[in-house]
Amino acid sequence: MTATKAWAAQALDDERSARIVWAHLAEPRDTKAVTLIDQRGHCEALRAVLDSPDQYPAFDRRLHDLDLPEQRRREQRLGVRIIVPGDEEWPTRLDDLDEVPHCLFVTGEARLSEVVERSVSIVGARAATHYGQRIAAEMAATCVGCEYAVVSGGAFGIDAAAHRGALAAGGATVCVVAGGVDRVYPAAHEALFRSIHESGLLVSEVPLGFAPMRQRFLHRNRLIAALAPATVVVEAGLRSGSLSTARRAAELSRIVGAVPGPVTSAASAGCHELIRDRVAELVTGGEDLLGLVRGLLVDPCDGLRERAVHRPEDELSPLGKRLWDALPVQRPAGLEAVVRSSGCEPDEVRRGLGELLVSGMAVRENGSWRKA
Amino acid sequence: MTATKAWAAQALDDERSARIVWAHLAEPRDTKAVTLIDQRGHCEALRAVLDSPDQYPAFDRRLHDLDLPEQRRREQRLGVRIIVPGDEEWPTRLDDLDEVPHCLFVTGEARLSEVVERSVSIVGARAATHYGQRIAAEMAATCVGCEYAVVSGGAFGIDAAAHRGALAAGGATVCVVAGGVDRVYPAAHEALFRSIHESGLLVSEVPLGFAPMRQRFLHRNRLIAALAPATVVVEAGLRSGSLSTARRAAELSRIVGAVPGPVTSAASAGCHELIRDRVAELVTGGEDLLGLVRGLLVDPCDGLRERAVHRPEDELSPLGKRLWDALPVQRPAGLEAVVRSSGCEPDEVRRGLGELLVSGMAVRENGSWRKA
Repeated sequence: MTATKAWAAQALDDERSARIVWAHLAEPRDTKAVTLIDQRGHCEALRAVLDSPDQYPAFDRRLHDLDLPEQRRREQRLGVRIIVPGDEEWPTRLDDLDEVPHCLFVTGEARLSEVVERSVSIVGARAATHYGQRIAAEMAATCVGCEYAVVSGGAFGIDAAAHRGALAAGGATVCVVAGGVDRVYPAAHEALFRSIHESGLLVSEVPLGFAPMRQRFLHRNRLIAALAPATVVVEAGLRSGSLSTARRAAELSRIVGAVPGPVTSAASAGCHELIRDRVAELVTGGEDLLGLVRGLLVDPCDGLRERAVHRPEDELSPLGKRLWDALPVQRPAGLEAVVRSSGCEPDEVRRGLGELLVSGMAVRENGSWRKA
Repeated sequence: MTATKAWAAQALDDERSARIVWAHLAEPRDTKAVTLIDQRGHCEALRAVLDSPDQYPAFDRRLHDLDLPEQRRREQRLGVRIIVPGDEEWPTRLDDLDEVPHCLFVTGEARLSEVVERSVSIVGARAATHYGQRIAAEMAATCVGCEYAVVSGGAFGIDAAAHRGALAAGGATVCVVAGGVDRVYPAAHEALFRSIHESGLLVSEVPLGFAPMRQRFLHRNRLIAALAPATVVVEAGLRSGSLSTARRAAELSRIVGAVPGPVTSAASAGCHELIRDRVAELVTGGEDLLGLVRGLLVDPCDGLRERAVHRPEDELSPLGKRLWDALPVQRPAGLEAVVRSSGCEPDEVRRGLGELLVSGMAVRENGSWRKA
């Protein structure tokens, strides 16, 4: 059905070219393509299609339609570069995937591998609440404040809030899209995508012109999960695609976080599921998330103490506390009465009251005692 | 210092009487009393105090002040009964405690051991939000609807909401107080305590007249943790005493739950800590809690599916789904175009479109196809 084209023949000897051709021939994670390439490598797999088009009619059909030189011209016009495994810009975390992308189509000035080296993926529902969007934006700002880039998917809701939070804080953000990087989806995010393109990176594993389709969103999610050492879901209904991103991240042994919300909010139900299923750690904000990423094991009790409000009686000795509890607030009590109410020995009571007096927490009036 | 009183002498031969005396002599969990009683039992420990008052001046002083017959008269007047380990009404879960109460002072008609047999403890912060109080009341109502009694501590906020939710749903509720059962604390809860007394139970391990003091609150919390097979914290700041109740319940191998809330709410911070520290399971409501109590292990994925919104495309075969994704919404596409966009073989496309047509999800117009 297909006459061998010059560029196709050339790709038989050049893995980089063969990978780019394959990005056009097969959907990401297409079983038939994955099997063929796993067995023979990209070049020989392409040769198999050229040699036996009848065995691979779907690939052959796309090959027939493909005008690679025209695609390259479009890529150049839009400033799209293509990176493949082995390139310096290739983010090696993607090699953890079962189905490594054939190549990545990238726009933006930064170097992808460097940007994602210190990064977190912040994802969530399109149908997000104000609460979720606020948390996502604040979390993104905290992360870029600590020089972590924010990876997300450019969708409405949490994704957009994360990108915007990162941009507003002057940080780097990476938007991994499901269609070609020239396909702005959703269309209302044209300005956002332009900002990301200008100060961050747009990334896709599918070529220019490819439409964002549901399957491609699911495949794309695995890239978001793989690119960063940690993925956090800010809000997710029970159907949200970000749940699959989180589960994928867990399968890749990435750190996974989820932000809780009101149990009355459907937009938090998926996060609660992830936490309950122990897929995700409960994360309350950017500091939490970065604490996990940095592998800082915080003693939970230390955490409680640090964050807790300070009270004067915390400084007291156990004896001092016991007397503090036993002292009346208003009408002063005599020593005997304090001995009884505290259950302490008289000499203990004297010592404890002395401690309270010194720390200004008890007053003595006519030989009787009360709280200061 | 003390002349032996007739009732004290009698208590030397009767453990029940000795336990009641000890409830007056020593604070719950008083180290000296616990050690003495562990070594000698309640009767002989009391004999030690009578024989060597100088060695036990604090106990001796309280013994000196104690008018047990007068206390008994007050108890009878208020309808207070005293139960000790071994009594039919004794809740045997309390025997799991390191420091079992000497006895319990109880008012209310139901039998404590029977009421707590099927029960949950619902606790939380006094400084609760509307959200927390609503969840606590709903959770309590769900529990009593399934014939589980609600145990709590009668405090402002979550405790009161839990009691009220149980009462409003016509269920049983147990209020474990930190002072004597005649000491209404807080005073504003007088009507609530009266309702609990009428249709539930008021319980304390300290005698009538004893004031609620901080130490006694902490001791009381262990009873709430021990009485029920499960304890759930609905809202708790980082300083809330209900965190100690939860940790105590965990130490007793009870089921522990915590309800998440907005990360922006200080009243949920303690719950989030409990969940993060894996002290508590994340619980979103009464069904969740009872699920844990009944030991029903729910497959989390089943859970997701059951609760998720149903979509027509969920019923499709994998092939049908793929074609559903590939079909345009508005302008119909010819078979060839669908073959390309779906990446399927032509005969697969025909089969898949047939499936969509049959299920009413695709329409055919002039030989072209679009979503219905």
